[in-house]
Amino acid sequence: MNTPEQFNPEEWIIDRDGNSALAIRFRERLFCEQSPYQTVEVFDTYDRGRMLTIDRIVMCTELDETSYHEMLVHVPMLTNSQIRDVLVIGAGDGGTIRELVRHEEIRQITMVEIDEVVVRASQEFLPTISSALTHPKLNLLIDDGIKFVREAAENSYDLVIIDSSDPIGPAEGLFTRSFYQDVYRCLRPGGLATIQSESPSFNRKVFGEINQCLKGVFGKEQVYPYLVFIPMYPSGIWSLTYCSKQGAHPIKDFNRDRAIKFAQEQNLSYYNADIHQAAFCLPTYIKQMGNS
Amino acid sequence: MNTPEQFNPEEWIIDRDGNSALAIRFRERLFCEQSPYQTVEVFDTYDRGRMLTIDRIVMCTELDETSYHEMLVHVPMLTNSQIRDVLVIGAGDGGTIRELVRHEEIRQITMVEIDEVVVRASQEFLPTISSALTHPKLNLLIDDGIKFVREAAENSYDLVIIDSSDPIGPAEGLFTRSFYQDVYRCLRPGGLATIQSESPSFNRKVFGEINQCLKGVFGKEQVYPYLVFIPMYPSGIWSLTYCSKQGAHPIKDFNRDRAIKFAQEQNLSYYNADIHQAAFCLPTYIKQMGNS
Repeated sequence: MNTPEQFNPEEWIIDRDGNSALAIRFRERLFCEQSPYQTVEVFDTYDRGRMLTIDRIVMCTELDETSYHEMLVHVPMLTNSQIRDVLVIGAGDGGTIRELVRHEEIRQITMVEIDEVVVRASQEFLPTISSALTHPKLNLLIDDGIKFVREAAENSYDLVIIDSSDPIGPAEGLFTRSFYQDVYRCLRPGGLATIQSESPSFNRKVFGEINQCLKGVFGKEQVYPYLVFIPMYPSGIWSLTYCSKQGAHPIKDFNRDRAIKFAQEQNLSYYNADIHQAAFCLPTYIKQMGNS
Repeated sequence: MNTPEQFNPEEWIIDRDGNSALAIRFRERLFCEQSPYQTVEVFDTYDRGRMLTIDRIVMCTELDETSYHEMLVHVPMLTNSQIRDVLVIGAGDGGTIRELVRHEEIRQITMVEIDEVVVRASQEFLPTISSALTHPKLNLLIDDGIKFVREAAENSYDLVIIDSSDPIGPAEGLFTRSFYQDVYRCLRPGGLATIQSESPSFNRKVFGEINQCLKGVFGKEQVYPYLVFIPMYPSGIWSLTYCSKQGAHPIKDFNRDRAIKFAQEQNLSYYNADIHQAAFCLPTYIKQMGNS
């Protein structure tokens, strides 16, 4: 009872804030490199396959990544069938791109990732996640996504995906009003955005702030947070947010038959037509956080 | 990098299996008693209110307990309006009883908890959770739930709730086929059962086994697992299972208007009519686990 519980850093990753922590045990560290922005590592875990961390915060594990990537991509893609030009900010591991290229109607994907080390680590050690990073429709830029969006032409994309890490370090500027205003500006009318919007349990304050901020930019009736079970992240409850530029409603305009067919044909792991609709049903206390 | 990350046991609860762990920091331990069955403790945490643990496994926290208790109780109660006699196995903290007594149509609740120490700890230190343990409709027995159900008269309850800890220690026998057969027997025709059925992420094997077992006892079309976000449990994704003795379907026979009215009047924290329906929509990989 009085001996400290020890987690050897050569065996455990501890993803913690001050008052709670998620620990995942690994067999071996496969990659470690200090980039100009952050420390990028890949581990071989016991239970959850290989795992990518940035500054020792879990980005994804092979076992759980499909929930996040499928829900970030297929929810907008199966709501609006007119998406042709896509901009992705972040997404260095490539999982988002892998899901996007399942949609043949997409003409071009521009991906702007600030840290080439993340891309390289994923290409070398996470082949099932990074598999589409060499896809011919992809234009991969190693650049600052904030600057890119600021300089992007008005009305140039049908879908913008913000697949970012947490609002600390290089991703901090991805959680500001001016950034979201730039996203709004470069969307075509009717265009959509989906945004990694943190946990309504683990990061309650940030979740509420992002929600308010997005409603200020896109309009109150154009912003819908939705929930995904992501066991690899602290608390396991994670939010993504669907925004539209006077475009489709994520449930009312959702084509259920198209989603059923797509999920089956593509043999998806998490996403299905029922989950698309269910994800927008929020527990009452989370609904209230979004409205406050 | 080479210093072990230490979690002082006088400051952290570590809920772990071999390869992952959830750690929650506390300010003070308020209660500790070794019962004949287990070590029961109550802690005052920094982030999640007070927390009850058994053998250092998290049972509930004040911040997160409503999700579990509301979903365990209101899903069956709002599917079948004819529930009058209720049997609850476990539930020592009292949260399940607090939710049950919101339903005026209930005539009597029999609760069978094996460990009086859990009841006492909760009554003393978790007043918001245990508030209904003195309710006049409640018949609280300190006894072995497995034996109780074995000896219970046939067709004697409209609803049986299994609000148990994990399948180790005294709760182990609550996860066997013969126990579920006894539950089935003591239900009236049309009666319902809801069962704590572990995490499809953290306890994948147990989740699959319970599902198979319940389908064997209640019938394939009478068993429906549903999901709840519970950040206080490892992985955050938890399942409850709805079973009926040739009774109501949890979605088709669900009275949405009654649920909306009830959730509003009772000012519930997690449960609402949308969540009732959404909880039964499973991610594809979990649906496949249930069918295998």
